[in-house]
Amino acid sequence: MTRIASVQRVAMRHPGDVAAVAALLDTGLDPRSIVAILGKTEGNGCVNDFTRAYAVQALCVMLATRLGSTVDEVAARVAMVMSGGTEGGLSPHFIVVSVSETQVPPTGALAIGTAFTRDFAPEEIGRRAQVEATATAVRAAIDDAAIDDVHYVQVKCPLLTSERIAQARAPVATTDTYASMGLSRGASALGVAVALGEVAGVTDDAIGADTSLYSGVASCSAGVELTRNEVVVFGNSHAWAGDLRIAHAVMQDGIDLPAIHAALRGAGLDPGGGQLAPDQAARLVALLAKAEPSSTGRIRGNRHIMNDDSDINATRHARALVGGVAAAATGCTDLFISGGAEHQGPDGGGPVAVIARR
Amino acid sequence: MTRIASVQRVAMRHPGDVAAVAALLDTGLDPRSIVAILGKTEGNGCVNDFTRAYAVQALCVMLATRLGSTVDEVAARVAMVMSGGTEGGLSPHFIVVSVSETQVPPTGALAIGTAFTRDFAPEEIGRRAQVEATATAVRAAIDDAAIDDVHYVQVKCPLLTSERIAQARAPVATTDTYASMGLSRGASALGVAVALGEVAGVTDDAIGADTSLYSGVASCSAGVELTRNEVVVFGNSHAWAGDLRIAHAVMQDGIDLPAIHAALRGAGLDPGGGQLAPDQAARLVALLAKAEPSSTGRIRGNRHIMNDDSDINATRHARALVGGVAAAATGCTDLFISGGAEHQGPDGGGPVAVIARR
Amino acid sequence: MTRIASVQRVAMRHPGDVAAVAALLDTGLDPRSIVAILGKTEGNGCVNDFTRAYAVQALCVMLATRLGSTVDEVAARVAMVMSGGTEGGLSPHFIVVSVSETQVPPTGALAIGTAFTRDFAPEEIGRRAQVEATATAVRAAIDDAAIDDVHYVQVKCPLLTSERIAQARAPVATTDTYASMGLSRGASALGVAVALGEVAGVTDDAIGADTSLYSGVASCSAGVELTRNEVVVFGNSHAWAGDLRIAHAVMQDGIDLPAIHAALRGAGLDPGGGQLAPDQAARLVALLAKAEPSSTGRIRGNRHIMNDDSDINATRHARALVGGVAAAATGCTDLFISGGAEHQGPDGGGPVAVIARR
Amino acid sequence: MTRIASVQRVAMRHPGDVAAVAALLDTGLDPRSIVAILGKTEGNGCVNDFTRAYAVQALCVMLATRLGSTVDEVAARVAMVMSGGTEGGLSPHFIVVSVSETQVPPTGALAIGTAFTRDFAPEEIGRRAQVEATATAVRAAIDDAAIDDVHYVQVKCPLLTSERIAQARAPVATTDTYASMGLSRGASALGVAVALGEVAGVTDDAIGADTSLYSGVASCSAGVELTRNEVVVFGNSHAWAGDLRIAHAVMQDGIDLPAIHAALRGAGLDPGGGQLAPDQAARLVALLAKAEPSSTGRIRGNRHIMNDDSDINATRHARALVGGVAAAATGCTDLFISGGAEHQGPDGGGPVAVIARR
Repeated sequence: MTRIASVQRVAMRHPGDVAAVAALLDTGLDPRSIVAILGKTEGNGCVNDFTRAYAVQALCVMLATRLGSTVDEVAARVAMVMSGGTEGGLSPHFIVVSVSETQVPPTGALAIGTAFTRDFAPEEIGRRAQVEATATAVRAAIDDAAIDDVHYVQVKCPLLTSERIAQARAPVATTDTYASMGLSRGASALGVAVALGEVAGVTDDAIGADTSLYSGVASCSAGVELTRNEVVVFGNSHAWAGDLRIAHAVMQDGIDLPAIHAALRGAGLDPGGGQLAPDQAARLVALLAKAEPSSTGRIRGNRHIMNDDSDINATRHARALVGGVAAAATGCTDLFISGGAEHQGPDGGGPVAVIARR
Repeated sequence: MTRIASVQRVAMRHPGDVAAVAALLDTGLDPRSIVAILGKTEGNGCVNDFTRAYAVQALCVMLATRLGSTVDEVAARVAMVMSGGTEGGLSPHFIVVSVSETQVPPTGALAIGTAFTRDFAPEEIGRRAQVEATATAVRAAIDDAAIDDVHYVQVKCPLLTSERIAQARAPVATTDTYASMGLSRGASALGVAVALGEVAGVTDDAIGADTSLYSGVASCSAGVELTRNEVVVFGNSHAWAGDLRIAHAVMQDGIDLPAIHAALRGAGLDPGGGQLAPDQAARLVALLAKAEPSSTGRIRGNRHIMNDDSDINATRHARALVGGVAAAATGCTDLFISGGAEHQGPDGGGPVAVIARR
Repeated sequence: MTRIASVQRVAMRHPGDVAAVAALLDTGLDPRSIVAILGKTEGNGCVNDFTRAYAVQALCVMLATRLGSTVDEVAARVAMVMSGGTEGGLSPHFIVVSVSETQVPPTGALAIGTAFTRDFAPEEIGRRAQVEATATAVRAAIDDAAIDDVHYVQVKCPLLTSERIAQARAPVATTDTYASMGLSRGASALGVAVALGEVAGVTDDAIGADTSLYSGVASCSAGVELTRNEVVVFGNSHAWAGDLRIAHAVMQDGIDLPAIHAALRGAGLDPGGGQLAPDQAARLVALLAKAEPSSTGRIRGNRHIMNDDSDINATRHARALVGGVAAAATGCTDLFISGGAEHQGPDGGGPVAVIARR
Repeated sequence: MTRIASVQRVAMRHPGDVAAVAALLDTGLDPRSIVAILGKTEGNGCVNDFTRAYAVQALCVMLATRLGSTVDEVAARVAMVMSGGTEGGLSPHFIVVSVSETQVPPTGALAIGTAFTRDFAPEEIGRRAQVEATATAVRAAIDDAAIDDVHYVQVKCPLLTSERIAQARAPVATTDTYASMGLSRGASALGVAVALGEVAGVTDDAIGADTSLYSGVASCSAGVELTRNEVVVFGNSHAWAGDLRIAHAVMQDGIDLPAIHAALRGAGLDPGGGQLAPDQAARLVALLAKAEPSSTGRIRGNRHIMNDDSDINATRHARALVGGVAAAATGCTDLFISGGAEHQGPDGGGPVAVIARR
């Protein structure tokens, strides 16, 4: 038996609308094959963005009915990664990732590996312990899926809450629960970097501070429901079948169109004079990128106002910008652009991965 | 004597910072030669955006000192066109436009013509009378500057206030003062379209309603301080000298990178594989574009959320998107992307003009 | 058997948190007795506020488990009225309303009546047909519950969608789906006013236009899931038992503290020198009020900026203001202040109802 | 000669509208007598609120013309204290404070004293050196004006910029320029507290951290244009004449109506059953209060969402709330409610001062 990955991108009409995912099941997708659902929902992508939890609840209720299981069982089985914020022209959508087996021989194709760390003690979050456990999990996922080249690593990681801080048996990395999200994402991204040899070693002090250390393939999000890290590694493997392929590049800043072009070309698409023609765009399965405002307040020397805007959060500006640049490259707006890029690409830039059909 | 136009793009650190414009005067620009100053300020670009008036006040105070005149005289002499909103990665900046005379023979170059309509009665605003008077003024400006091909027409137009509505001697187009801004912009844009033969004729009912009627070069803004229309026409003329050249194209939607490429190429710049290389970008003098959300709620079939977002105004999303696409093309973020595009390009799209140095 | 109403106010930690409602069931509340759940959720209360639907989904999933029924059955059985927006100091909470029977003799107490209109044709929404059908339903609910004096009428009403407009067999009141929400709320409020004799008769033209016509007890919200009006009437009845009592007053503007005091006193609470003392506040069961910006742009002659703020929707400012005034009167912040008050109280003001325990 | 203070509250139609201040000059106010102008402008009150600077520029340009001096001379002579944010129902306005001399004998009345600290080194800002210098200046202002009882101390203080941090000869309190505003305000407030004996002594560590230390009369704002602290002390003095009187109280939380009542009564106004009657309100000259979200996330046990809202800054919610409570007490909305209350009143509360006419 050969493994084969499927990735399907479908629209949502609002955060609770899972009809298009249900339609995939109606037309043959086995719900038991689903390993992850990524979603771009239309909330603010910040603290009080409840569109993420609403979408997860709607997905879990629907899948529980289909699987004849409980909502909690679905949540434990499928990695749900909702990213809030469809600023600019971005279009809300789900990306359904599934893995099944086939009789065809391996042809070399997109491969997906998953792994989990152990549960973390509160005092380990945002520290080297989290880095190292994540690195171990990434290596396990790579081995499990026989991935030859890694292009995108989605990590869901825990955060500190007041309750967890109270339970800690040693000082925690921060007592600010919001800041703990960034530290947990950062430590997780550095774990990916260590696993892939992008970074040699990490000290506690570097986490959240040394922006020169980063992974070019990590994409991390923190969620209150977790106590461990969940890792989904996307790469290519000689041992898998199918017509999908993944590639990536690293945007050096928010307007790095050439990097997006490089990722598209790496996945076998030709942006031609700048934007994918419709026949090429039809072969684009998913574009996943990280966006963040540069901490310098500048892009190629010109001032941006993202960090000074008290009406619109800086990450919202950043997603709108990178979404515009990626839409320029692809001619599409249903792109998975997410914010919060600590140690995920260079300051003001970020990884961009492309999955395409041959 | 031959006329020669100068266009200079300078940064601002905040809406009241006119130091960079003052520096142009210090290094030789004659304040009496300035015919217009365009500015992209960092407010919300909507009703309560006071960054526009603040920048105008700061410019007028500074220029009054330099010219030995009053603030009101400066305001009457120089067309001040401030566009609020630097969403995404856009960078606040001024564009200083001046016209002087030179001994060199005409070489063919960027030419700038200005004209004014008569004062409008309140009941004429947003109606055919405004369309026709604007068309007459555009033709006069073209003749005055001997423009061969028109590529960008900036119009400042009045709006209805409660006071003006009370003074009207016939029913006004709308009693909603905010709506009057859109109708005035729309009627002005249709006046440009009529002058240039883009539209054959216009009825009162079509203004603000029939989106199939539009100008591909008009850019209009409404201001409470005006009772007439002020018109600045940008084009190329065989009778002018200098090393500047202008071209334009019409974006069919917010992600129309090929249209931006066409405008760049028309002005003599080569976007190569997608983004201007640094040597080409150094020759870009100004990019001016209109942005607006499509009324269909879709871009190439995919849903956008601009019109449904009650936290961020739809025009802010639109500027962020078009700013990202234009930054992808140019590698720059100090681009004059403005919103409110009634009859200024097709629904969801808009004109884009490029001024470049040879 | 005598009817008895129960009203319980419980906190939520986020829009999906129904634990406090579940705890009421755990401690004896019969889920079959619940007739309505009102909720104040922490979204923006405007178009893209998904906290309302999220809370409804969470309530329905939980109640379906308790009742052994489907989510749809719960939604059909219990009137779910979620009002988004907890600006200023307002505190997110649910108000669970139930009706049961008791052996004790009637003592005179809070009484609750429910009724439904027939389904509306699209062309009836926002028109006299909706006014009249609502009036009939209000009268039926009053009769059913033997209510002597009416103090608060909650109406849920439908809105126009593109689909419904396409199905209409006659011109609809508006083709703007957002505007249809206001017209539907307005027609529903006028239906309440007609039933209670507050307004003599209503023409189609007056709906949404003549602010002098209003109900002093109506509170209306529009929802896409409905095709008919659902009416819940709150009043006092000699035929009911229990220790709850309701009263109301009409705020003439957003800072009408005396009106709130009158409603508190009417329900048997004593605000003393201005604010309920803790023992009085402990007897406050619910305060329900409508808030809206005055269309004049003024409060007692002073300018407010609600209608001109493009960053924060006007209804958000209005809720924050009225929430502050009501908190001043009660010393509490878990108050049900909702926006969108077409024909629900005078321009800039609105009804305020108080339910208190004896 | 006896000193007499004048305080006049006038409306503005937008942040650049100083016509009402000019009208005061036209009707007899001597521009040389103006010592301070406070303004409540309609920006967001946060980082990118340019309405404050715009209003200051407009005031300075107008006053420079009247005084025959330069804009810089006006700025040096008059303390301009603009507070952004008129959320809820608050009304934008200026408060013009002037001091002149009169032949009448002292009657006891509102008195105003001003003083300045020396310039601070960058490393002194937000540290004990700033606390102590501020305390010295407050004492000097009190002595100068022979103030018997202090009720409101307005302090303008500097902040750290990147340039100043680079010039520092010792480590600065913070390298985060935004955070330096809070530390500078906090150190200034503690300086007031030390001068008035509200706090015994202060360590560097307590500044910005120990919320139990605070002044009940301080109101501080940080501005980039300063390098020293400017202090304006408001109190009553036996040695002054006039019909104005000031009093204050400390709100323990954002809904502390009784504290506002106490301040009103202290100044000779009678709130009666809760809200000033029109004849009493006509004698209210100014209400000045501080607002901030409680760091606990709760008000009297109920959750508020101010600190978790990524669309509306927490200080905006707080001003809306306190503005509503103060409007309930006064029946007016042109109230000077400002945010950023570090060490200015207890956590979640703040000082409230009232100036009234006898």
